[in-house]
Amino acid sequence: MKYDAPEWATLPILERVRRSLPSEVIAPPLRRLDGVGLMCENLQVTGAYKVRAICHLLNLLKDGLGPKGLALASSGNFAVALAWAGRHYGVPVTAVMMRRSHPWKVQRVRDWGGQVVFSGDSTEERTEALHGLAQDGIHIVDHLTDPQVLVGHATLGLDLAPAQPRQVIVPASTGGLLVATSLALKQINPLVRIVGVQPKGANAMVDSLRNGELKRLDTVVTECDALTANRPGDLPWELAQQWVDDMVEVSEEAIRATVRYLAEEAKLVVEPGGAAGLAAYHSGQIPEQEGTWVVLSGGNIAPARLAEWIQ
Amino acid sequence: MKYDAPEWATLPILERVRRSLPSEVIAPPLRRLDGVGLMCENLQVTGAYKVRAICHLLNLLKDGLGPKGLALASSGNFAVALAWAGRHYGVPVTAVMMRRSHPWKVQRVRDWGGQVVFSGDSTEERTEALHGLAQDGIHIVDHLTDPQVLVGHATLGLDLAPAQPRQVIVPASTGGLLVATSLALKQINPLVRIVGVQPKGANAMVDSLRNGELKRLDTVVTECDALTANRPGDLPWELAQQWVDDMVEVSEEAIRATVRYLAEEAKLVVEPGGAAGLAAYHSGQIPEQEGTWVVLSGGNIAPARLAEWIQ
Repeated sequence: MKYDAPEWATLPILERVRRSLPSEVIAPPLRRLDGVGLMCENLQVTGAYKVRAICHLLNLLKDGLGPKGLALASSGNFAVALAWAGRHYGVPVTAVMMRRSHPWKVQRVRDWGGQVVFSGDSTEERTEALHGLAQDGIHIVDHLTDPQVLVGHATLGLDLAPAQPRQVIVPASTGGLLVATSLALKQINPLVRIVGVQPKGANAMVDSLRNGELKRLDTVVTECDALTANRPGDLPWELAQQWVDDMVEVSEEAIRATVRYLAEEAKLVVEPGGAAGLAAYHSGQIPEQEGTWVVLSGGNIAPARLAEWIQ
Repeated sequence: MKYDAPEWATLPILERVRRSLPSEVIAPPLRRLDGVGLMCENLQVTGAYKVRAICHLLNLLKDGLGPKGLALASSGNFAVALAWAGRHYGVPVTAVMMRRSHPWKVQRVRDWGGQVVFSGDSTEERTEALHGLAQDGIHIVDHLTDPQVLVGHATLGLDLAPAQPRQVIVPASTGGLLVATSLALKQINPLVRIVGVQPKGANAMVDSLRNGELKRLDTVVTECDALTANRPGDLPWELAQQWVDDMVEVSEEAIRATVRYLAEEAKLVVEPGGAAGLAAYHSGQIPEQEGTWVVLSGGNIAPARLAEWIQ
């Protein structure tokens, strides 16, 4: 099978974008534990992969931004990365967060000087609140539709490429990281298998791919505060049917056990959403295969909550 | 100042030993956080630096060992590394642990097929129990006096050298890692400043250096189960006066806060003893200096205990 990337995401473009990111955006440690590879993106600056896309966006936009700066919608990690990058680039930033966003993440955004606007908990309510900000003269980025967000995410795939993965497991919410990782890796090796993982109670992408049409969940029930999208992103959905090989659902119990396992065995703090991929692999639903890598996509969990989870 | 290393620890020897270690013994991630470098040896295989010395010893000894294999004394991490290496090399191993050794570490040794013999809690009682095993036909290694243990530890210094450190902060118990790190790094750059850290309630090396003679503590009071030596090792003590620039004491409260900080900010699980160096740096007792690196020497803390510490 041959994979033709969209013209905005060819390998030379992705490689140029990777080189343009600040040096603080590390190529994260690639470790092996009990026969599976762990891409430790939880150790990324701001504790999650989102900083890649934010820095790419600010590289593109910073010279044209008005005094009110940039805004985007986020359940948490995107907002944290936005606040860090706003400070790094000296740009005012606003995050549309949800009422149920975790207080630790909200506080972190404020600590780093970001503005927070709250919206309702659905992906649609967030998007509506974001577009409202545009009328106030804030430049908005809608990560459900903006290809440059995927270009930023795709740099994660490039950082995993030296490990020559044969199967890569990626947590999915709107599906952006999932398809973006595939955009990068399948251009390098079309045979690499890309598997997405969602919590059982937040399985909009699973459901959509199963039905062949974009599905919307009425309710989302998961402790993975990074994986709460009640529908796939428009652009990730468009790409997912070609670029994603399989999707798997995982239980909250399995995720909890994996957060604990990663603390005990890997000495890594990984948030629930970041641990979903390894939880799925350990659940036996994904073929065991040499060259399997799991993206530990984030580590932003409040100490008190981590304590409760690993007790 | 010029540093003449002992003939058993010249740079070419250390470099050859580093190359001889199994590939599982990683050069750990070197990260920067809030202006200080973190050498993440907590991410080392077996969760601590001790595996370096064990593998070096087994490379030297394995062909000459009898059917009862190898033994050494350990408060915990050395024993865990011994058990892992015993399995890796196919050699029977026995660890002399203390009654107060943490149950998580004792269980880990047994899980990996190591024998455990318990001794009293003082460094002397451990050593006595170890020498008792020699009479049973077990080859013993006494880490208080064996230069090859320091040679193994010194490979950690080599892995830090690419960061070109100007000041390195190292937790100390018997002082082996402290002097060994210095043996490696001062041969590369005599100007590098090497600072040892001990908990206030387990400060035998601090006390010895302050008094210019080897001092023994009657009691040791610390939650750092990796830093419980009540006296310096003989060989570390002999070298410390020349090779260590400063020693600092740190409170249990500061260590606890640092374990929490490392989980929240660095997304790293670090055991109390492994966090002592950063705790000391944050306490303001060590000059702030660019090029400061802290050795996070271990991450072996039971999840339930970590939960209690970070709550």
